[in-house]
Amino acid sequence: MLVSQVSFSLSPRARGCHLVTSDVRSALAPHLAWVRAGTCHLFLQHTSASLTINENADSDVRADMEMWLNSAVSEKTKWRHDAEGPDDQPAHVKSSLFGVSVSIPITRGSLALGTWQGIWLGEHRNDGGSRHLVATITGSAMDNEKK
Amino acid sequence: MLVSQVSFSLSPRARGCHLVTSDVRSALAPHLAWVRAGTCHLFLQHTSASLTINENADSDVRADMEMWLNSAVSEKTKWRHDAEGPDDQPAHVKSSLFGVSVSIPITRGSLALGTWQGIWLGEHRNDGGSRHLVATITGSAMDNEKK
Amino acid sequence: MLVSQVSFSLSPRARGCHLVTSDVRSALAPHLAWVRAGTCHLFLQHTSASLTINENADSDVRADMEMWLNSAVSEKTKWRHDAEGPDDQPAHVKSSLFGVSVSIPITRGSLALGTWQGIWLGEHRNDGGSRHLVATITGSAMDNEKK
Repeated sequence: MLVSQVSFSLSPRARGCHLVTSDVRSALAPHLAWVRAGTCHLFLQHTSASLTINENADSDVRADMEMWLNSAVSEKTKWRHDAEGPDDQPAHVKSSLFGVSVSIPITRGSLALGTWQGIWLGEHRNDGGSRHLVATITGSAMDNEKK
Repeated sequence: MLVSQVSFSLSPRARGCHLVTSDVRSALAPHLAWVRAGTCHLFLQHTSASLTINENADSDVRADMEMWLNSAVSEKTKWRHDAEGPDDQPAHVKSSLFGVSVSIPITRGSLALGTWQGIWLGEHRNDGGSRHLVATITGSAMDNEKK
Repeated sequence: MLVSQVSFSLSPRARGCHLVTSDVRSALAPHLAWVRAGTCHLFLQHTSASLTINENADSDVRADMEMWLNSAVSEKTKWRHDAEGPDDQPAHVKSSLFGVSVSIPITRGSLALGTWQGIWLGEHRNDGGSRHLVATITGSAMDNEKK
C-alpha cells in the first residue's frame, strides 16, 4: 500500500460546466502509473465551484446542466449573502449540491471511469479564476513485471 | 494495509429509488471479511443513475424521493440533449445531484451503516438495464485470532 | 500506510446548517497527527442530516442555504412518509442532496481545507438530537523526525 498526494490548479474557466478529465489525467499521470488497484480522491479547495462525474461526449449535457442549476438556484432570490454580487450565494448552494470532491477507482494505472464518464468542474462564479485541487492516491503497487 | 477491488453488476431495475444493500453485501462479503477498519468505495460507472445512502425501512421514503426528483428535474423542460427521449437529460442531472459513488466505513468485517441506513440505487432512466459498479476496499487486516 | 478509525458524536443542534470544523478537529486531533499524507473520511450514521463542505466565515451563507433547502424541498408537498411530522420526508431528501459523508485530504497532520472551507452539519430535523459519526483516517506515517 502506498499513498501519493499532489496539488495542482485548473486554469480559469467561464461560468458553467466543464470537462476536465484530460487536465486531471495530465496532472496525475506519474502518480497513477504505479497503482494496481486503489482510489483517486480529488478535492477542490473552494466553496463556489464543484466537482462531479457526468457525461463526456455531448456538450449539450453540460449546457443543459448549467441551465438547470441556474433555474434551481436563482440569482433573483433575496439572498442575505450578496457582498460579491448576485452569483455569490447561488455559487455556494450549487457547490454543496454537487460537492467539492469525487473519488474514482484506479485499476492497473488508469482511472476506472465508465465509457461515458468524465470529470466535470462546475464553475459557479462569473469570474472564479483558477481553481486549486489536492489529489490523494491510495492503492497497492503493481508488481515490477507489470509496470 | 490491504486493498481489494471487485467489479459487479446490479440487475435491471425500473426507474425509481431502490434499496440494494443486500446485493452489495453479497457481492462484497469475502472482501469485507478480512477488514478490521477501513472504507468501502462504491463507484457506479454510469451517468444516468446514482448511488446514495438513505432510509432502509419504509418504501414510502423511496417513492417520495422519486416524486421529488421528478418534480425538481422536469421532463417538460426544453432540454437540448434529448436524443434518447425525455428521461435522458433529467437522468444526467439527477445523477450529479446524488452522485455516482458512496464511501462507507468498514468495522470488523462489516459495513458500519447506521441502524436506519441502506444503500440506494437511483435508477433515473426508464429502461436503464443492468448497472456496473467497481468496489474498492481499503483497510487494515484483522489479526488472525479475530478472523 | 496506516488506518485509524474513531466514532464520535456531535451535540444536538437546531434545524439548520452548522459549522462543525472545530468539533471534528477536536475529536480527531490525535488521529490526524501521525499522517504525512492521506484522507479523512467522515460518515454520518443518519438519514435525516447531512455533511457538506462550504464557507466558514459568514453565517449568512448558512442561513441562506437553509432557506434554499426549505424552498427546494417543501414541507407543504403531499408526502406519503409523514409519520414523524412535516419535517420528516424533507429531511430524507435534503440528506441525499448533500450526502452523509465527506472525504478531506490530510497533509502533514492537518486537514487540507481551503482558506474559506469548513465542515458543515446539515441538521434537517426540528429535533434531531445528537448525531453519530465514524471517521476513518488512511495515510502514510510521518517520519519520526517530523512528528
